Amino acid sequence: MTPQARPRERLLDAAGELFYRDGVNVGVDALCKAAGVSKKSMYQLFRSKDELIAETVASQGRQYQRALEPGPEDGSTPRERILTVFQRQDRLATGDSFLGCPFVNAAVELKNPEHPGSVVARHFKQRLTDFFEVQLVAAGVEDPESLAIQLTIVFDGASARAVVRAQALAGVGVAMAATLLDSAGVPAEEFASQAK
Amino acid sequence: MTPQARPRERLLDAAGELFYRDGVNVGVDALCKAAGVSKKSMYQLFRSKDELIAETVASQGRQYQRALEPGPEDGSTPRERILTVFQRQDRLATGDSFLGCPFVNAAVELKNPEHPGSVVARHFKQRLTDFFEVQLVAAGVEDPESLAIQLTIVFDGASARAVVRAQALAGVGVAMAATLLDSAGVPAEEFASQAK
Repeated sequence: MTPQARPRERLLDAAGELFYRDGVNVGVDALCKAAGVSKKSMYQLFRSKDELIAETVASQGRQYQRALEPGPEDGSTPRERILTVFQRQDRLATGDSFLGCPFVNAAVELKNPEHPGSVVARHFKQRLTDFFEVQLVAAGVEDPESLAIQLTIVFDGASARAVVRAQALAGVGVAMAATLLDSAGVPAEEFASQAK
Repeated sequence: MTPQARPRERLLDAAGELFYRDGVNVGVDALCKAAGVSKKSMYQLFRSKDELIAETVASQGRQYQRALEPGPEDGSTPRERILTVFQRQDRLATGDSFLGCPFVNAAVELKNPEHPGSVVARHFKQRLTDFFEVQLVAAGVEDPESLAIQLTIVFDGASARAVVRAQALAGVGVAMAATLLDSAGVPAEEFASQAK
């Protein structure tokens, strides 16, 4: 880690935490204070607050993605890999610190689809849909693209429910995803023998 | 309308527009300016900005609900009445000014489930679920409560999709809701003869 890299990472970490907890409207002063970085240094590292927002969404994005998606090849079936995402969401949403999907939050708060932060949020949301689609292609379903979009809608709807109600999801997203997979002919045991 | 009522309504209207367009963090000065009301008058009408937020969410809530839900008795079937909500959402989400469900937005932005605005948002979100449930009971489905929650999740997921992508939904929410109703045995024509 170069000495120049440290303030940058401190800023991204502090911004990730503050944006998620308090929203993207957090002031630059509060951000710099939390990161222990001067405003001058901040503007040497990022051209603008908008650029910092976009890079923060990207940095959070990678973390959130790792927290949700199973690793590349762990011997599980496509169905299991999809349901893992919903099980992990269910677990995340149980925590008091859960305040929703960081990408949806960024888009909601920025209120401008052209903002660089909204563009990054859209990219990461699309990556989740792509993850679902790859699994659905592997499972051989008829219309993987549509089903991947439907699973993303269930994911975001469940996330909104957890935020609005401030209560655990209690498996409702997992159950809906499982029902969608059942209807598309991706039953529980289809690939299990192959994976063993 | 009493002379006292006018500034109050101007404030609620201006706050509804500004909160939706710019977020609940809009300053009191900007709000009062948009409403053409002095800060002193504002604090005579509302005890705090938090109270103004809560009343604005409630006022917006009633408008949003009227825009989505069909009237009490129009001769349509429970299925049609449920799908009307999704068709109207689809139409609303097509507009450039669509920035998501005002209740989910309030909960996302306030980041505090105890905030009076979050409490009002939760109440209105529950009313949508209740609307679905009443229709599902009328349609005689087996587990109206669960299906009403699932329909709400589809509604919020579709809304999030429209915000994140800033594109029309092109019927994806309507189609998912229709599939859920099909699976629950609420087919297209079941109540049509009765309604005629």
